Amino acid sequence: MVNYPNMKKRQMSVSQPSTHKHYTAHRGMSLEEDISLSNEYYLTTQKAVIYKKPTPIQIVKVDYPRREAAKIVEAYYKTPSTTDYNGIYKGKYIDFEAKETRIKSFPFANISLHQVEHLQRIIDHGGIAFIIIAFTSLNEVYLIDASYIIHDYYHSQRKSMTYDKIKTLGHLISQGFQPRLDYLKVVDEVYLKEDE
Amino acid sequence: MVNYPNMKKRQMSVSQPSTHKHYTAHRGMSLEEDISLSNEYYLTTQKAVIYKKPTPIQIVKVDYPRREAAKIVEAYYKTPSTTDYNGIYKGKYIDFEAKETRIKSFPFANISLHQVEHLQRIIDHGGIAFIIIAFTSLNEVYLIDASYIIHDYYHSQRKSMTYDKIKTLGHLISQGFQPRLDYLKVVDEVYLKEDE
Repeated sequence: MVNYPNMKKRQMSVSQPSTHKHYTAHRGMSLEEDISLSNEYYLTTQKAVIYKKPTPIQIVKVDYPRREAAKIVEAYYKTPSTTDYNGIYKGKYIDFEAKETRIKSFPFANISLHQVEHLQRIIDHGGIAFIIIAFTSLNEVYLIDASYIIHDYYHSQRKSMTYDKIKTLGHLISQGFQPRLDYLKVVDEVYLKEDE
Repeated sequence: MVNYPNMKKRQMSVSQPSTHKHYTAHRGMSLEEDISLSNEYYLTTQKAVIYKKPTPIQIVKVDYPRREAAKIVEAYYKTPSTTDYNGIYKGKYIDFEAKETRIKSFPFANISLHQVEHLQRIIDHGGIAFIIIAFTSLNEVYLIDASYIIHDYYHSQRKSMTYDKIKTLGHLISQGFQPRLDYLKVVDEVYLKEDE
């Protein structure tokens, strides 16, 4: 596992209703930033085309100042009905959500029913659907197939999935310099082995 | 072709920097609304999972009034670096842009270099990439494979593609009640014929 001794503390983007600022806090990076940088790397190396969808915003009022760009002066965050990330990798449709948790479990409150339903639809249509979960206190990041989360979301007595279960059912994502989170390596192993 | 005599005039959404309000103006519907309704139909009939990406917004200032939702008080529209729509259909990654034009040609100024590059990447990675073009004065909507637009964008002397060329290279999308624009029928014919 790599720490980043020379990494400067970055300013957090204000484009998100950020409840997830504490992933690997010593590095000053969020899971979202790490995934964004990994996606940029995948894009420039022509490995995959995966983007984060913009946060949906309900715009209420826009001003049109003369000679300037339209200025939104009243707007609100909307609840996303899909996951944050999707794209194409080796000809396959990829779809996932990324979440941080500070405790040693993944609370299902972190994911909405709409997102669970969306992930199930992706599986039904033949896509690759998973969740990336960062345990910030452990500095470990796992990829877990969406079907496990969906199953427990509907059927488990618990309102969360334990770290141990995620460790067993999921796959540790290796951290590095480029890409920071090589989650496509896990995708290769878990979903595309027969194609190699 | 179907008109919609009983269709009530809908209020335009303010969530877009809408320069495209005049598609089939007698119906009061925009191309974007027609595609959204078609996508909802495809979703509920379990035919495909295709969404419009939210418009990217640069948020500058957010107020947090007590007991109320966070209120965005300064924000600006950003230029999208990808296309508006993507999703999965019959296990295939689908990616497209939708544009209206009032004249009898499709001006390349309607599409950004970033979007052209993005569409090329999707083709390179084995996805299905196209553009839906609505000729509002004719009430005709065409699906044209992105490769034709990309080619002419880079190589044509003209700064647009003519209606006649789009009619020849593209495919007319049938309009109806549900779905309003059955563009997946064209996708079947153009891209998935061998799979049937």
